[in-house]
Amino acid sequence: MKTEIRFSGLGGQGIITAAVILGRAAALYSKKHVVQTQSYGPEARGGASASAVIISDDPVYYPNVTNPSVYVIMSQEAYNKYGNNAPEDALMLLDPGFVTSRPVCRCFEVPATSEAKSQLGKTVFANVIMLGALLEATGIVTYDALEHAVLDSVPKGTETNNKRALAIGQELVRSQL
Amino acid sequence: MKTEIRFSGLGGQGIITAAVILGRAAALYSKKHVVQTQSYGPEARGGASASAVIISDDPVYYPNVTNPSVYVIMSQEAYNKYGNNAPEDALMLLDPGFVTSRPVCRCFEVPATSEAKSQLGKTVFANVIMLGALLEATGIVTYDALEHAVLDSVPKGTETNNKRALAIGQELVRSQL
Repeated sequence: MKTEIRFSGLGGQGIITAAVILGRAAALYSKKHVVQTQSYGPEARGGASASAVIISDDPVYYPNVTNPSVYVIMSQEAYNKYGNNAPEDALMLLDPGFVTSRPVCRCFEVPATSEAKSQLGKTVFANVIMLGALLEATGIVTYDALEHAVLDSVPKGTETNNKRALAIGQELVRSQL
Repeated sequence: MKTEIRFSGLGGQGIITAAVILGRAAALYSKKHVVQTQSYGPEARGGASASAVIISDDPVYYPNVTNPSVYVIMSQEAYNKYGNNAPEDALMLLDPGFVTSRPVCRCFEVPATSEAKSQLGKTVFANVIMLGALLEATGIVTYDALEHAVLDSVPKGTETNNKRALAIGQELVRSQL
């Protein structure tokens, strides 16, 4: 059992942090094997950000993400690059505040950025809202594992808002099930 | 021109954060191409942590780190796994508070953890001290690029101590030059 998840969006949206958190949740708190990769060039400044996580029951020897089955997409540019090629049996979570296209595959619209702003006062929580949505849509890790990994990774004093962010993301998907 | 750097140590030492910061410094503030990878399994909990960064003037198509030329090592276990095989022409920075072995290659002893504790009151700054040491030993990015990337990545309110951590790391290497 092996799942490949690609996070993509804009610099500043916490794309890489989201991937690192999911990797921690899977490896440290769910006894999975994880490879997490990001590749970026000079164009990343103010622009594209992408990171991939491979979660497997067995050790992963080939770290290149080749065929993600789950996509989290937070910009139209990222959609054009990655989302356009998502196969029909993939799953996609996208932020409709940034992405106007819609894929052929199963898709949840997760307005993470606007909900972060309206419910928590800061867009910085959008990536954790997306993780909550991912959790609800896939069950790839347990809630406890993800919460542990989130709380490991965020600044002291933001724990309550980050837990709320997870719950907001879960609810945004649950309402579309 | 392509440089491969491997960070390794224990969970909780900020190994992955250090690699992400260096990757940001190179890609966003130094116009380099970067691939940054971490691979971990269930054994990572309370145990091994490792991450690799490839920094290149050109796009990187093969993300596997095969032959690092720079090693940052913060535990004896990590030394046994990665440091033992470092070739003679590699460069190594190790924390002598955790690593008792010494390599055949050029090596700087950087007591990052004990200096973080004694000078800044918290061991959490050890990874940024190591980045300052890496900067001084390699010049792989500019000081400004690294400082930018550090300040992007650390919690608000810790900026001054993180800048001091960079300077402490630089000085620890400079005193051995």
